[in-house]
Amino acid sequence: MSDGSDSLCRPLRTDLTRITEAVAAADADAFVAVGDGFDADRRYLTRVPGSDRASAVVVAPSENAGGRAVYCVPSALREQADRQFIAAARAGDDTGFHDSVSREVRAERDGSHMGERAAAAVRDLLGDADEERSLLVPASIPHDAAVYLERAGNELASTDAVATARSLKTDAEIDRLRRVQRAAVAGVARAETVLAESTADDADAAARERPNRRPALRWDGSPLTAERLRRAVNVTLAAEGVGDAGDTAVAVGGSANGRSHSRTDQIRPGETVVVSLSPRGPDGYRGDVTRTFVVDGDGGWERRASVAVEAAREAALAAIEAGVPVATVDGEAAAELAAYGFDPNPGPDESGATRETVRGVGLRRHEAPSNGTNLRPDHVVAVEAGVRDPTAGRVRLGDLVVVTDDGYELLAEHPLGIAPEPR
Amino acid sequence: MSDGSDSLCRPLRTDLTRITEAVAAADADAFVAVGDGFDADRRYLTRVPGSDRASAVVVAPSENAGGRAVYCVPSALREQADRQFIAAARAGDDTGFHDSVSREVRAERDGSHMGERAAAAVRDLLGDADEERSLLVPASIPHDAAVYLERAGNELASTDAVATARSLKTDAEIDRLRRVQRAAVAGVARAETVLAESTADDADAAARERPNRRPALRWDGSPLTAERLRRAVNVTLAAEGVGDAGDTAVAVGGSANGRSHSRTDQIRPGETVVVSLSPRGPDGYRGDVTRTFVVDGDGGWERRASVAVEAAREAALAAIEAGVPVATVDGEAAAELAAYGFDPNPGPDESGATRETVRGVGLRRHEAPSNGTNLRPDHVVAVEAGVRDPTAGRVRLGDLVVVTDDGYELLAEHPLGIAPEPR
Repeated sequence: MSDGSDSLCRPLRTDLTRITEAVAAADADAFVAVGDGFDADRRYLTRVPGSDRASAVVVAPSENAGGRAVYCVPSALREQADRQFIAAARAGDDTGFHDSVSREVRAERDGSHMGERAAAAVRDLLGDADEERSLLVPASIPHDAAVYLERAGNELASTDAVATARSLKTDAEIDRLRRVQRAAVAGVARAETVLAESTADDADAAARERPNRRPALRWDGSPLTAERLRRAVNVTLAAEGVGDAGDTAVAVGGSANGRSHSRTDQIRPGETVVVSLSPRGPDGYRGDVTRTFVVDGDGGWERRASVAVEAAREAALAAIEAGVPVATVDGEAAAELAAYGFDPNPGPDESGATRETVRGVGLRRHEAPSNGTNLRPDHVVAVEAGVRDPTAGRVRLGDLVVVTDDGYELLAEHPLGIAPEPR
Repeated sequence: MSDGSDSLCRPLRTDLTRITEAVAAADADAFVAVGDGFDADRRYLTRVPGSDRASAVVVAPSENAGGRAVYCVPSALREQADRQFIAAARAGDDTGFHDSVSREVRAERDGSHMGERAAAAVRDLLGDADEERSLLVPASIPHDAAVYLERAGNELASTDAVATARSLKTDAEIDRLRRVQRAAVAGVARAETVLAESTADDADAAARERPNRRPALRWDGSPLTAERLRRAVNVTLAAEGVGDAGDTAVAVGGSANGRSHSRTDQIRPGETVVVSLSPRGPDGYRGDVTRTFVVDGDGGWERRASVAVEAAREAALAAIEAGVPVATVDGEAAAELAAYGFDPNPGPDESGATRETVRGVGLRRHEAPSNGTNLRPDHVVAVEAGVRDPTAGRVRLGDLVVVTDDGYELLAEHPLGIAPEPR
């Protein structure tokens, strides 16, 4: 994203017939979502960026066209909604695709509650009814909005139609995920370069007192801490035009979440440094990459762990195929770790470091698919493998892939080596 | 935040007796919140950073102590919850303050629904009951969780106790807000410096074709666009250790939201450039600052607008006082703009640029207090004033202040001048 060309892309649009079809399949009358700007369903349905303010989306099939959609917003969001929800959808996405759902924005200044406004939009779209109307809603719709809808004569049933639609990425969405993943890899490359450039800190007092201890690391004139490394990565992400989303993590050593090694402790040679990023691109889509580095390792535990984790990653990727259960991929990685003598399944007390091998990534870092579902083409998933030893350290590798008709494609690549090299 | 010393602070803690007192005042039995990691109430109550995973908090007064609190989490969050919800609360905040609420974390691996787990925690804390128990919940609790709680024999009533508690900042919270606001001001200073360093672009073809048009701006070897300016600001924020939270905005000229001036259009002399930041610090608290710059302005509209907006900002700040209605401050700013001949209240069609003069800032960029409430000591609010003309441009100034017993204190300062100077 370094040239800013992302801004030249056409804005994303969402095929709302995915929703009208779910309404028809459930023999319901309409779909309603209410949420604040951090609600990923709302962002997916409208493509309007985050805001603290609540808004509501109503989608109903209609007889003469594919459907009708109304987006109720506070008036401060009107222009954004007109631009993203109406104009962008009309323009079509990068591939020129349009759905046949007509869209309308309703703005109100000091509006009534969004549940009340959604109920009014339902009434307008469907007309007065003699009996209860049946609405599909996401299970986690705010309770107050649900109560407004019920009091207005609607019966609510929950649907995972939006989660399913979100999990199946369009070409335009995959393009966005690829861009942000490239920025994420640039961030990892920056961390690796900083570690490769680090040198022994002759001023390290603790090391001078104990002759057997190697001096800690120094970079660019100051002691190298996890916090400095994290900031260096985030500076690269910002220059690439993506945000760190609060999810850039640098975990040093093997203690739980790397936190007993404080962010301001100096990093030492031989310590495992797990760098994990999940930046957010301008359209809200997330990258996800994890690499592990050890400066001047002694070739002991971390070398064996790194061989095992590379093999587990390879086994997981080899198992990625449309139709395969997510749990199967997880099993392949676990079997490989066990074959190398590592515990693939640390108990719940150490679960801070336990992660699913496969999870969907999109507008959220954790979304469908997850365990219990089968992989499908156009799923975008993080594939991760790792081991941890409370004293020796931790090693983890993770990448983002799109499931294709005949396997998978890595959305961006970065070498797996544990000894940092300048990139 | 440039030295990383923020990480040396004690973690924040939350006085849960604010919640137990609300429960007692409402003659209810307990308080329940269920939310994902982006829910600011959940973060406030637990101090555990964001996560896509849902969790639940139950707080009940108890007879022999101040109260009991249970935090139900998925097992992957256990260690974080132990550290932030239990250990940090036990350690006390920067001022050494402790409440008398005992805290417990309950982790479950592939757990039941959080509503079900919250209902179980309510039963454990309160014992079996012959009649319906009465629970206070935030109005926007997820509907599925509310239904679980109701089916388990609880009657729900909504409360704004958490919003009120969040709006009254502790000294430790004000300290965090001050730190992130200083980083925000460093970001604005970077934008101002970039604009001050910009020069006429002799390669500007559009200007060469039209002799009356001044060449557009160039900086650091390339054309200066809004997107490049935004990235330069975000690089500074990252180096300061805060995230841009997707809320760094650079609006050029007067069109709605600055969007018809595309992010990749070159900035020109004489155009108004509004730089608005709301970074998020490591504890989740937000800064908020807005400044306007014009490179080589002609002293016309933007000069008059800038004088009016400075006067409106001054009038608003002068009105800030404990006990004063938020709407009064708004009225003072509007009256000043009108006195200078500017429309203080552009209609709803232009509302993308209309903003409240005063709004609370904390874990969210928009929170209590807002219009309809009175200012109280320890409220932290953004104070903003601005005008817009679709062709001439826009000018806006905004700062973050804490309401004190005898007025207000600016959390960080930056000059107001419209002609950029290197900082």
